[in-house]
Amino acid sequence: MATAQDYPWHSVIGTRWMDCDAYGHVNNVVYYSWMDTAVTQMLYARGVLGAQSASIGLCVASGCDFHAPVEFPGDVTVGVAIERLGTSSIRYRVAIFAGADTPAANGHFTHVYVDRQTRKPNPIGDQTRATLSDLVSMSV
Amino acid sequence: MATAQDYPWHSVIGTRWMDCDAYGHVNNVVYYSWMDTAVTQMLYARGVLGAQSASIGLCVASGCDFHAPVEFPGDVTVGVAIERLGTSSIRYRVAIFAGADTPAANGHFTHVYVDRQTRKPNPIGDQTRATLSDLVSMSV
Amino acid sequence: MATAQDYPWHSVIGTRWMDCDAYGHVNNVVYYSWMDTAVTQMLYARGVLGAQSASIGLCVASGCDFHAPVEFPGDVTVGVAIERLGTSSIRYRVAIFAGADTPAANGHFTHVYVDRQTRKPNPIGDQTRATLSDLVSMSV
Amino acid sequence: MATAQDYPWHSVIGTRWMDCDAYGHVNNVVYYSWMDTAVTQMLYARGVLGAQSASIGLCVASGCDFHAPVEFPGDVTVGVAIERLGTSSIRYRVAIFAGADTPAANGHFTHVYVDRQTRKPNPIGDQTRATLSDLVSMSV
Repeated sequence: MATAQDYPWHSVIGTRWMDCDAYGHVNNVVYYSWMDTAVTQMLYARGVLGAQSASIGLCVASGCDFHAPVEFPGDVTVGVAIERLGTSSIRYRVAIFAGADTPAANGHFTHVYVDRQTRKPNPIGDQTRATLSDLVSMSV
Repeated sequence: MATAQDYPWHSVIGTRWMDCDAYGHVNNVVYYSWMDTAVTQMLYARGVLGAQSASIGLCVASGCDFHAPVEFPGDVTVGVAIERLGTSSIRYRVAIFAGADTPAANGHFTHVYVDRQTRKPNPIGDQTRATLSDLVSMSV
Repeated sequence: MATAQDYPWHSVIGTRWMDCDAYGHVNNVVYYSWMDTAVTQMLYARGVLGAQSASIGLCVASGCDFHAPVEFPGDVTVGVAIERLGTSSIRYRVAIFAGADTPAANGHFTHVYVDRQTRKPNPIGDQTRATLSDLVSMSV
Repeated sequence: MATAQDYPWHSVIGTRWMDCDAYGHVNNVVYYSWMDTAVTQMLYARGVLGAQSASIGLCVASGCDFHAPVEFPGDVTVGVAIERLGTSSIRYRVAIFAGADTPAANGHFTHVYVDRQTRKPNPIGDQTRATLSDLVSMSV
């Protein structure tokens, strides 16, 4: 199984006290906020998204398999790789690491790029493709 | 102590499973989302705010005293009254009721109205004052 | 495509102001909290889960396809059906309806039943199977 | 006005994409989760709270004044000081710093210590008082 090093992008995200539910571990929903945050952090860092960018990425599909609980306090490392860089969408593979070599969860997340105003799909331009090309990975 | 009937506006809001923290009751932070939602629901219902309104309300102060735990599942009733309808701000008194006559929490919440684009304060117009006047209450 | 009436269980859940993200619609993560809440509300209502139940349900997998944005204010109706009632797990089909006949999102959600203390899998008993049997549906 | 250096405890907390609301900045409610998290991180780090601690801290009061918006992405630094270390409660002063010398928000947060099982107030013991004494500050 892929380890954190196999993912070309990493975001370190801290757990919050309210992330835990009544079972004393981080609620399943919160893992999706980590995926959403890690992907968006990467897109901001690469200049693909920003507060004024003409295109925005809307999540059209996601999913997660949960392998192990995560507890407060502490950070998780979110590994991100691009599985498919399509015409106007990008599908990511994401893994959540919480101290162990193997992930606490594996997920996928797909953005469709749309015009910020009209919300109609916008093809992903060549500059963005070049900017993200190093994140495309077949190995995770 | 004021009961729900003493508040001129009520919003009924359902608890969510993830609202609970590791202590098995709704986390303190979530009460503020109920206040924020009840006030904003009222402002949408009265036509003061909307997706395209020229002014928006930004929270500049809030606070809460927590009297009793709230548990999942079930709804809370959020009572809202206007304590002060100022030149460009409105201060609300808010109470959270969770099945008992006395509130599980009492809070306050202040919005400043600003221009959606410039974020500069916008005086509250006469029409909005008239629209909200029945919510001003000295008794809670 | 299945409509709300095709799902044997419904939960009505209100949107909260903070559910919206910077794109002005409910963030993708929040849809998972609606699924999680609707399934858990049903399990509480049927007496399968409770604050003191010996078994608890842990989410081991979920996923969602997003078809249309959901906006504040207003409620969503979450339709729930059991796709597979296994030895110690239950897989649900879930749909989010937000005013239209067709769902704004379709998802799945799988709980594994474990002992509350040891967190080891607990087979689902005959009483629980009987209690949930009317929710098993092949049509959604 | 106090700067971050005036607070004896700091937690660095990352913003999440879903923290932003439809106005494009972090929603007011989220600031409370930062306070709640920073105080609880400190209590875990000092060994006052833990997954099995006999006493737990329940929030009985909090409040916040919001001075400036916070935006995604980026971290905030949460400064924490003890304002009053009472018999069974602790009142904290909290400030949120987001890049500027002056805080984006100032708040307070009060925990009452109770027995984890009975939820009856538990006096704070001498060891805990000693452990936290360096965080008591009159200067913020």
